[in-house]
Amino acid sequence: MSDGVEWGVHACVLLASLPADAALPAAKIAEYHGVPAAYLAKHLQALAAAGVLATAKGARGGYRLARPPAEITVLEVVEALEGDEPAFHCTEIRRRGPAATPAREYTKACGINRAFVRADAAWRAELAATTVADLFIGVLEDVPRPALEKGARWLREAAR
Amino acid sequence: MSDGVEWGVHACVLLASLPADAALPAAKIAEYHGVPAAYLAKHLQALAAAGVLATAKGARGGYRLARPPAEITVLEVVEALEGDEPAFHCTEIRRRGPAATPAREYTKACGINRAFVRADAAWRAELAATTVADLFIGVLEDVPRPALEKGARWLREAAR
Repeated sequence: MSDGVEWGVHACVLLASLPADAALPAAKIAEYHGVPAAYLAKHLQALAAAGVLATAKGARGGYRLARPPAEITVLEVVEALEGDEPAFHCTEIRRRGPAATPAREYTKACGINRAFVRADAAWRAELAATTVADLFIGVLEDVPRPALEKGARWLREAAR
Repeated sequence: MSDGVEWGVHACVLLASLPADAALPAAKIAEYHGVPAAYLAKHLQALAAAGVLATAKGARGGYRLARPPAEITVLEVVEALEGDEPAFHCTEIRRRGPAATPAREYTKACGINRAFVRADAAWRAELAATTVADLFIGVLEDVPRPALEKGARWLREAAR
């Protein structure tokens, strides 16, 4: 999984802290996270294309969450950035070699593929159970107070 | 995930069908699955190094399962071939940028990382719940009878 997933989820959590009418330019989001602006911009565009983020034009323009943070799951962010292809890709090798019979005779999916499909579903279900709002509340609980205060001051300047 | 995982799991299921004292050379395992022998050999060696497969030397030598198939999980095969690193790698970007405070002040793991750790654990738990024996029984139930008969005939010749 690319670093962009970590960046994308963090960006959503940061945007969850903005007032309802505010937006944050891509360059500011990159600055806050200390990541390369050009590369982050690609991920923010993908999140906007997937309907996770929305763009606001004008002098106070930039990105904001497209929906309330409690309605955006970590899975949505992951799938916006990495697609929804499972990690395991079945190439049906059971149909090759000396035991092969015509494809139409294999009426059931391969049991090996089914085991990976179940694992993939469990992974996605777990990521769908956590929302951006959960993570935002977690930040307030977990991050050291001085870091929260510095972040809030910076954000008031950046989003003004 | 590399195609080698699919091959490795299939190879284990094939070896589960051998009589207790039999082994199958790497080249025969590759032939059965219609996959490149040199590339498969690498994966079989990794499975042997991890204690999933055992090697038998001599004229009737080759690979066999190191343990009863009910004691080998799909997760073991995956981890032997791909390692046990989670797909999500936290780079602690929360400690960068204008809100950063010294690392020692972050006493709790990042909530974003924790969400991915939970998802990774769910994925592995699902793969640990399926054994090579389960898959072998599944093959007997799912694969068309002509393919099973052709496979059994081929295997009798190959493992003699």
